[in-house]
Amino acid sequence: MIRRIGKRTLQFAERPFLLSHAAAVGKKEGDGPLGAQFDFVTEDDRMGQKSWELAESELQKTAIDLAVKKAGLQKSDLDVILAGDLLNQCIGSFLASVGSDVPYLGQYGACSTMAQGLALGGCLVEGCAARRLLAAASSHFCSAERQYRFPLAYGGQRTPTAQWTATAAGAAVLSAADPRGGSSGIRVTHALFGRMVEMGVKDANNMGAAMAPAAYDTLSTLLSDLGAQPADFDCIVTGDLGHVGADILLTLLREDKIDLSPVYSDCGSLLFGDEQDAHAGGSGCGCSAAVLCGPLLRDMEGGRLRRLVFAGTGAMMSPTSVQQGQPIAGICHAVVIERSGA
Amino acid sequence: MIRRIGKRTLQFAERPFLLSHAAAVGKKEGDGPLGAQFDFVTEDDRMGQKSWELAESELQKTAIDLAVKKAGLQKSDLDVILAGDLLNQCIGSFLASVGSDVPYLGQYGACSTMAQGLALGGCLVEGCAARRLLAAASSHFCSAERQYRFPLAYGGQRTPTAQWTATAAGAAVLSAADPRGGSSGIRVTHALFGRMVEMGVKDANNMGAAMAPAAYDTLSTLLSDLGAQPADFDCIVTGDLGHVGADILLTLLREDKIDLSPVYSDCGSLLFGDEQDAHAGGSGCGCSAAVLCGPLLRDMEGGRLRRLVFAGTGAMMSPTSVQQGQPIAGICHAVVIERSGA
Repeated sequence: MIRRIGKRTLQFAERPFLLSHAAAVGKKEGDGPLGAQFDFVTEDDRMGQKSWELAESELQKTAIDLAVKKAGLQKSDLDVILAGDLLNQCIGSFLASVGSDVPYLGQYGACSTMAQGLALGGCLVEGCAARRLLAAASSHFCSAERQYRFPLAYGGQRTPTAQWTATAAGAAVLSAADPRGGSSGIRVTHALFGRMVEMGVKDANNMGAAMAPAAYDTLSTLLSDLGAQPADFDCIVTGDLGHVGADILLTLLREDKIDLSPVYSDCGSLLFGDEQDAHAGGSGCGCSAAVLCGPLLRDMEGGRLRRLVFAGTGAMMSPTSVQQGQPIAGICHAVVIERSGA
Repeated sequence: MIRRIGKRTLQFAERPFLLSHAAAVGKKEGDGPLGAQFDFVTEDDRMGQKSWELAESELQKTAIDLAVKKAGLQKSDLDVILAGDLLNQCIGSFLASVGSDVPYLGQYGACSTMAQGLALGGCLVEGCAARRLLAAASSHFCSAERQYRFPLAYGGQRTPTAQWTATAAGAAVLSAADPRGGSSGIRVTHALFGRMVEMGVKDANNMGAAMAPAAYDTLSTLLSDLGAQPADFDCIVTGDLGHVGADILLTLLREDKIDLSPVYSDCGSLLFGDEQDAHAGGSGCGCSAAVLCGPLLRDMEGGRLRRLVFAGTGAMMSPTSVQQGQPIAGICHAVVIERSGA
């Protein structure tokens, strides 16, 4: 039973179980501060494939296969896969699931895709449209550079506000029931679908600034709808504002007398170390997907986090829209995830 | 309350109301056999905009605005918009809704996007995740030619199996209740999420052949799950297999002793007349969206159709995936729409 509380927050009475999760990343991501907490780190960013696009697809497939296996399921146990990526026509996700025989709903929320899939997936499980489903998202530095900027061989320069598209994928299985029995576990309790917020930012090398106002809109609405303070959560994480966008978000909230900083993190800021030359931090659908489905959910399993807001942020644009002078809109979808029981 | 029946069909006990619908199309589509049944036909395919991409976005916005108005609503009455298109990063849809302040979930199902939005939207309304929502999709011949094939000025030749991307958009409002009261009206009773079916077709100029096996998979599953015969429906319509794909679908079903032909139509075959030089028929997310939200739903309102299966078909591919030799997978999502009451 889904109940609307406040302006836009959806509360799940049955609280779908987040049965399992897996993250697969590239070499640079594996070398970063979170490297040990991913399920799979490739030494070969080509993943044995002939193209970067196929490599991304293989990485997403790896995360999906691991998540399904960790849940003790077969793919045929899934009622639907919700997946997306940044590639034109979302081919990374289509190719990752084409042989699976599982119903498929392609999602496009730019870097908010993982959060969009979990929010929508929570509604489908809670509403009995699916018993078990999988949400996944991916990105790949090399396929993104080629599509959005230049082929790698051009050696294009990057600005300080630019984020580094993560070579990463994450997948999570949501289920109406835990087949291992009991009610303890990691569960999705709330979701909030974001609206697009556009403040005139046109610089495709400063996505953080384009997305921060949307994160502000979603997080302030969520806190207000829940009647909650930041301290009611162990962690409120955005994905991926990067250093620049995260600063803007904290500033915007501070103007409303909300201090997010004690519990706040950003997946893009967490993924790479300062010495890794990633400029303003990580980005790409796979960044927040992998940071959630690797370190963050591991921390929940280990009891180090009990209540988490996962707020995925996306920049709505394409190379064509930017070249035509259109502003970049931000969007931010959020889910609340809790660890209940022992 | 959503109940699963048979293998994969979702039955909606509350049967969300399809409150209103609107279709906006280009000049060629307006000159075709269905021309008089669209809400808006532009004389200027540029829609007064500076680029084809912005023109597509304006066309989708026109359909959305008309659908909202026909429902007697404001955009602020919508809990969410589910929209998608064929443009890279789905910018046609993002730009159409960016100023609306309505939560937004970008969908990518290629030409099945309208059906995907309605199937998913039905689940969200039935599951109480949304009280009222809008599903929309669009395509534009000129933006599609430029992205998938060549800029128009190149005058590229087309093969006989090629379909003509429609300049068209459709939008429909789903609602848990009819504010005009009563239980009569057009309602969504069932949905089925399609799985990708890939049979080795690699010819991007023969999408019908790539999509037909997916339509076969979805329609034969739906009929079996419902224990229904084709004659139980006034119309079973795919969108958009075109002439070539439609023939393949009928042949595949005939091998199972199912004769779909008495009630079968295809949006791509309906949109253009034989003299309009559209080769194998119309295609593009906007084709099935506009044919549904124009003529088909008008026929339901007028009592000429009472029970309709709308099965949107999509070809999962991109220019990059085709150039890299990847096969094209088909997908087909279906909804059952009924007219009840007087």
